[in-house]
Amino acid sequence: SRVRQAVILAAGMGSRLRDVASHTPKGFLRLGIKSIIEESIAKLVWSGIDEIIIVTGFRNEHYEKLSKQMPFLKTVNNDMYETTGSMRSLSKAQDFLKGDFLLLESDLVYEFDALQVVQNTAHKNCVLLSGKTLSGDEVYADVRKETILKLSKKKAEIHHWGGELVGISRISHDLYEEMIAWEARKSKKYDYENCLSDLANIERINFEFVEDLAWCEVDDSRHLERAMNVVYPRVCERDAKISMYRRTDREVLLNPGPATTTDSVKYAMITEDICPREAEFGEMVEGIRRDLVRVVHGEGQYETVLFASSGTGAVEACLSSVIPPAKSVLIINNGAYGKRMEQICDAFGVLHIDYDIEWGQPINLAFLQSLLNDLSGQISHVALVHHETTVGILNPLRSIVEMANKANIQVIVDAMSSLGGIPIDLRTCKAHYLISSANKCLQGMPGVSFVVCERESLMETKEFAKRSFYFNLYDNFQFFQVQHQMQFTPPVHILYALRQAINEYFLEGETQRYQRYSESYECLIEGLEQLGLRLYVDKRHHSRLLTSVVEPDDKKYEFADMHQYLKKRGFTVYPGKSANKRMFRIANIGEITKRDVGAFLETLSGYLRARQINVGFGNRHYQTTIVGGKNETAHVS
Amino acid sequence: SRVRQAVILAAGMGSRLRDVASHTPKGFLRLGIKSIIEESIAKLVWSGIDEIIIVTGFRNEHYEKLSKQMPFLKTVNNDMYETTGSMRSLSKAQDFLKGDFLLLESDLVYEFDALQVVQNTAHKNCVLLSGKTLSGDEVYADVRKETILKLSKKKAEIHHWGGELVGISRISHDLYEEMIAWEARKSKKYDYENCLSDLANIERINFEFVEDLAWCEVDDSRHLERAMNVVYPRVCERDAKISMYRRTDREVLLNPGPATTTDSVKYAMITEDICPREAEFGEMVEGIRRDLVRVVHGEGQYETVLFASSGTGAVEACLSSVIPPAKSVLIINNGAYGKRMEQICDAFGVLHIDYDIEWGQPINLAFLQSLLNDLSGQISHVALVHHETTVGILNPLRSIVEMANKANIQVIVDAMSSLGGIPIDLRTCKAHYLISSANKCLQGMPGVSFVVCERESLMETKEFAKRSFYFNLYDNFQFFQVQHQMQFTPPVHILYALRQAINEYFLEGETQRYQRYSESYECLIEGLEQLGLRLYVDKRHHSRLLTSVVEPDDKKYEFADMHQYLKKRGFTVYPGKSANKRMFRIANIGEITKRDVGAFLETLSGYLRARQINVGFGNRHYQTTIVGGKNETAHVS
Repeated sequence: SRVRQAVILAAGMGSRLRDVASHTPKGFLRLGIKSIIEESIAKLVWSGIDEIIIVTGFRNEHYEKLSKQMPFLKTVNNDMYETTGSMRSLSKAQDFLKGDFLLLESDLVYEFDALQVVQNTAHKNCVLLSGKTLSGDEVYADVRKETILKLSKKKAEIHHWGGELVGISRISHDLYEEMIAWEARKSKKYDYENCLSDLANIERINFEFVEDLAWCEVDDSRHLERAMNVVYPRVCERDAKISMYRRTDREVLLNPGPATTTDSVKYAMITEDICPREAEFGEMVEGIRRDLVRVVHGEGQYETVLFASSGTGAVEACLSSVIPPAKSVLIINNGAYGKRMEQICDAFGVLHIDYDIEWGQPINLAFLQSLLNDLSGQISHVALVHHETTVGILNPLRSIVEMANKANIQVIVDAMSSLGGIPIDLRTCKAHYLISSANKCLQGMPGVSFVVCERESLMETKEFAKRSFYFNLYDNFQFFQVQHQMQFTPPVHILYALRQAINEYFLEGETQRYQRYSESYECLIEGLEQLGLRLYVDKRHHSRLLTSVVEPDDKKYEFADMHQYLKKRGFTVYPGKSANKRMFRIANIGEITKRDVGAFLETLSGYLRARQINVGFGNRHYQTTIVGGKNETAHVS
Repeated sequence: SRVRQAVILAAGMGSRLRDVASHTPKGFLRLGIKSIIEESIAKLVWSGIDEIIIVTGFRNEHYEKLSKQMPFLKTVNNDMYETTGSMRSLSKAQDFLKGDFLLLESDLVYEFDALQVVQNTAHKNCVLLSGKTLSGDEVYADVRKETILKLSKKKAEIHHWGGELVGISRISHDLYEEMIAWEARKSKKYDYENCLSDLANIERINFEFVEDLAWCEVDDSRHLERAMNVVYPRVCERDAKISMYRRTDREVLLNPGPATTTDSVKYAMITEDICPREAEFGEMVEGIRRDLVRVVHGEGQYETVLFASSGTGAVEACLSSVIPPAKSVLIINNGAYGKRMEQICDAFGVLHIDYDIEWGQPINLAFLQSLLNDLSGQISHVALVHHETTVGILNPLRSIVEMANKANIQVIVDAMSSLGGIPIDLRTCKAHYLISSANKCLQGMPGVSFVVCERESLMETKEFAKRSFYFNLYDNFQFFQVQHQMQFTPPVHILYALRQAINEYFLEGETQRYQRYSESYECLIEGLEQLGLRLYVDKRHHSRLLTSVVEPDDKKYEFADMHQYLKKRGFTVYPGKSANKRMFRIANIGEITKRDVGAFLETLSGYLRARQINVGFGNRHYQTTIVGGKNETAHVS
């Protein structure tokens, strides 16, 4: 069974590396684009680790800064790091550790497979051993059959050599408790390797041996040189191979979600059988609720309410729950999802006033202002769609929120296909209800939707007459408050996938994800124009997440034919939404890069040529421009 | 990527086995409890095959009977089986085959791993080769590097021996089309092995080699003897080992769902990225809708409407959609789920009359009859819970349906935790709406719920004023009718898991699943009584799926403590529902057997002893009775 927590020991001063790293902990040395510690964190997350506890000491502020960006990172400090051994540091993680965990050191450079081995081992306690490295600082393992007898730096003490200690171990909670108890009786300078060695006679500690593993520690400048010249290039090469291999089943989805996901999000769905009424599951769900608030910077003032439903369910939950009986909601409709809000209100008898705009046209803010003025007193809320995927238009959320707040009107935003892809900051853009789902720019799986609610506003709805049972927003919130669980049976596996997806979101970073999507978009636009295809929406209003393309005015063109041609080659494109508009849609959300978009454009170009389709604006040939350079990091797992 | 279809060639007469199998095809020979073909089918399903096409000939009625039990089995007949070769048979499957597939013969005995190898290969076309079998009827492969050059029975024709042909091959759709074209030009007696051999020079056909694979064909009585004495015992031993290995993460869930699932249902969630608006996904969903109707024998008259929600969502969909505005629904409430129906009606302003019974008490049918008489004209529907998991009572569905139908009143049944576990036959028990979810006795994953609706009744609701948008039953049905898709984004992975779970349901069989659950129940009751524990509900009303146990009246007993003790040892028990009732609950649904229940009882006994708890009815020691004998089949995968 996979473990979900990891401890990284990072208290040390790295005194043997003073000349290259005097101001930062040695984990912050860089071999590639990211520091050693950041690469290690990424690999841990991809291997299914949900929570990483870093025990800090020397220059702990660097790790704390990192933990602010990544909610799954917890830091705990060992104040006495200068005078104590690594066991003292390990004991500091005690309050965080709930079960079995992986133990690593901060200066470890390793190929991803190393984690796979300890994650997949059948042993409860397991140290990872490798073949000979000749690194000069080896810890050797003395073994008998499958178990460790002793760990030592002295070759003479080893009777039956089992390998070299890598410094990635899987520790059961029982063993950890023994280690803590042992530590209390030993000297301050006691190290965890010695502790494992001492306990090997009492507890069963097994090992996994990988002869040819690419790994090293970086303790001194000789190590660093070897890491840079020998080990790190090998690590990169191997990890890239895994990445290629594991991704054979990946399809490039260019529909607006469910989007292409990472393998690690897919495999997060495979978990042991669990009753979702168990406390450990409830804790995970509470973590998801907290982290979704963090995604939109609403900490302290917002609450997430989760639903087992498609995104539309959460829209229904919000609209049927928060409009007071005597008031109306002003719905801005410039696409199918604005229209859907009107249909929901109709079904529930919620009063609504509709600002209907031709689909694909932008909102007239001056007219909206006059509406807000005229309707003040009559309407309690304004509702809009942030990213209208009907045509790929981005509505000006910030301006509308400001206008509404000035008029004392609350804002409901359907941010279904923008949240996670386009930065939203509730501290400066104070919408009251933000609706989204797991399977769009968050890159999770479909089956979970949610509303991020401004707490004070939500509390005001407590006494409103219920219009629905399953989707009542306040009741579902209240259940979380009291029971720390979802009110109705949760989609367990979809929530595990969402947990993983959110961790990967923070791993990538808000700005970086937006940038990746933007680069894909720019590559797409450039390519479409090169091919002579025309865009349906004025570029100024583009969401940069989905692009509507005018269909070629040529009888040889047929959407179904193009779709099949592209699908056979690994690309899924999406038809237009409105029947009377001749266009198709290309989204660039999900775990895809501009490389994929480039490959798509080449294939599309091939299709147009193969069918001899005249795009009507002068046929041009698509020439691959350089998409992605040598420095692009491969996504391992 | 995994393939989803398989073809089994089963037309042959097995003329060399005439003395042992003259009336049945040789695939129906038995080595274990099931026939060779049934074991093969089970392994294919566990390996993720969704559809099996059997090409029949000799005594085809035997296969057709099998296909009636298992909707994922299709048969197609080769009338000319006496005079044609296996390629003619293979060509008969053409109309069914949509993509790549596995090809097998009907008389093949093999270990499960054989399928894993061809399912996990990276080769598009791949034949499975083994080491030397000395079986006397070998087909040898001549190979170069990773590809096949020739297949032949003549050793002299083999230059570089690559192994023996097992008769399990993975064929791409492109290769299949080539084979069909080739067949048309060859003699009638052309066999598929010769065809692969002939095409090996034109198409790339690779192989996977497994030195020590347990397998054999059964062509003559010498083969049969070897199969019985050597191969089959080895197959059983190895499959049992896999089963043990893969199940290390299994927890025995004794809560009333989400239940323990098979590994194959878990792994069904891992699929390539797919846009759920693609036709192939729609087809799968349509298959699920059809098969759910089959589970309750409603073919022809019933329609399934699926929802992305917990089970409660489907209850809400039904109650908010089908009661006409001027009419009331009579709700029978003898537990929390009856109560929930009342709450849903309240939220939607649906008129309801409540027959409230003390939780745990049975329905008074005479009183119900008088209610139906008195309320006739006023009520359009009666709604009840089939299996009330609040205490584990089974309400008399059949009697109530008969009474209601006589009074011309429609019936809504919440069959959440009975459907799939207790046989329900809509041909003789004509309820109008049957509500359930994927994650109870169907042994799928949570996130999908559904209503099986009597079509005529559902059609009548078309013009009813909508009370909800997401959950409107008719609109969701209509979308399936027109678009062959779910109306809102489906929970893709949960539906793949449900597809697998339904196949495994039919594989096990309606009666056999009920029997397995019943055996677990009987083992449970016997054990609880042996331990001196008391049952909360009179045995006459037990559902046999969930049992409420009166808590020991001893201060040393505490539910949370017992729960943790049991959980640490792999068993999850469930607390009581009503706060004032001192009881806890044990369900026996899901992929568990009486062995698991026996192990649970031993652990429970250990707990009571460890804490010296006086059960209050004379403490007795639980003695393991023989649960499960030598003949129990191991569930592979």
